[in-house]
Amino acid sequence: MAKQKISAAPSVRRLPSYLHIIRQVEREGSEYISGTIIAQELNLEPIQVRKDLSITGIIGKPKKGYPVHALITAIEHFLGWDDIQDAVLVGVGNLGTALMGYQEFQFHGLNLVAAFDMDPRKIGSTVHGVPVLPIESMDIQVKNLGVKLAILTVPSPHAQETADILIKSGVDAIWNFTNVKLKVPDRVLVQKEDLSSGYAMLCVMMQARKLENKNA
Amino acid sequence: MAKQKISAAPSVRRLPSYLHIIRQVEREGSEYISGTIIAQELNLEPIQVRKDLSITGIIGKPKKGYPVHALITAIEHFLGWDDIQDAVLVGVGNLGTALMGYQEFQFHGLNLVAAFDMDPRKIGSTVHGVPVLPIESMDIQVKNLGVKLAILTVPSPHAQETADILIKSGVDAIWNFTNVKLKVPDRVLVQKEDLSSGYAMLCVMMQARKLENKNA
Repeated sequence: MAKQKISAAPSVRRLPSYLHIIRQVEREGSEYISGTIIAQELNLEPIQVRKDLSITGIIGKPKKGYPVHALITAIEHFLGWDDIQDAVLVGVGNLGTALMGYQEFQFHGLNLVAAFDMDPRKIGSTVHGVPVLPIESMDIQVKNLGVKLAILTVPSPHAQETADILIKSGVDAIWNFTNVKLKVPDRVLVQKEDLSSGYAMLCVMMQARKLENKNA
Repeated sequence: MAKQKISAAPSVRRLPSYLHIIRQVEREGSEYISGTIIAQELNLEPIQVRKDLSITGIIGKPKKGYPVHALITAIEHFLGWDDIQDAVLVGVGNLGTALMGYQEFQFHGLNLVAAFDMDPRKIGSTVHGVPVLPIESMDIQVKNLGVKLAILTVPSPHAQETADILIKSGVDAIWNFTNVKLKVPDRVLVQKEDLSSGYAMLCVMMQARKLENKNA
């Protein structure tokens, strides 16, 4: 199971940006939003938007579009963002600190209960409201807190050993920001972030433009 | 053109992780790599890997697979990573600093020539070898350096005004890490990073597992 492929991956990846737009429309007091409006905002095809949203189980009404409140509820429920999800973060470096200050997380039900680091200057401090604890206490703390989700922002050479300890302590889902492909038991879910993916997208657009300018 | 949709987006997004694996195999001295091996490493279907790699124009040989050196060259050329691409980074906060220290960039032809910030404590310093210059000098410096690509890691409220100055100074491609949907002229390319996308993927996997455990 843990190794399953999410077939609708590109659709899932777009849901947060849909949610962002729909919440804005809700704040402006609209009751309905059309797939076409969402598509325009995000530079997508309307059919793509409708297809993506259909994975949450919601269907728009002809001419009116989607009821805003029900659409938000459907997306949040599909993603599990209507529940609070406790998590710990390991590695309070620049990236870790940036993530701890990422305000969108509160809208995603993500609740950072503690962070861990080995630097004595950081231990005992509070970063964006989250206490930084010594990494030696990580196994006991994670067990005691019953936390199942960990965000991994340690230097890559420490990635596997840190993951091993987390998993032994009860963690069964890891959001991995290191560039190490972690070896984990089947039951443990890993989402690996790769900054190079976004850069590759930008580069392909630049290459296409270069070619176009040459042919123009 | 700038608003074009990259139809092969998921394939493009996977290319950097392919490159990572293929480079490792090259270091180990292998001459060929099969699509099946790459697929196993990344938990993908072999047919998907072959389809993805075909966008670079390379075709594998039956039984032998892909010639490693030619495959690396093909992917790098497709992404333009065989050229040096000068860039500036704006906003030397935690995320900006983390990106400046991201060692993979050197393999992607990305050459950070300068960073800009408004904090006097940062100006004049060097972060991971990159000089931090005052944001007031950004327009002149970008023009003088002839830089076309900018990485935007300023606080979101400053995103649009910073982008406007960059574009006026000659930048025509922006890697946007803020959560602002930038308004830019058609000729300017923007790649927006959204950390929530990866988290959404992890959440959908967790939701699927929860459902599976309930039904088991």
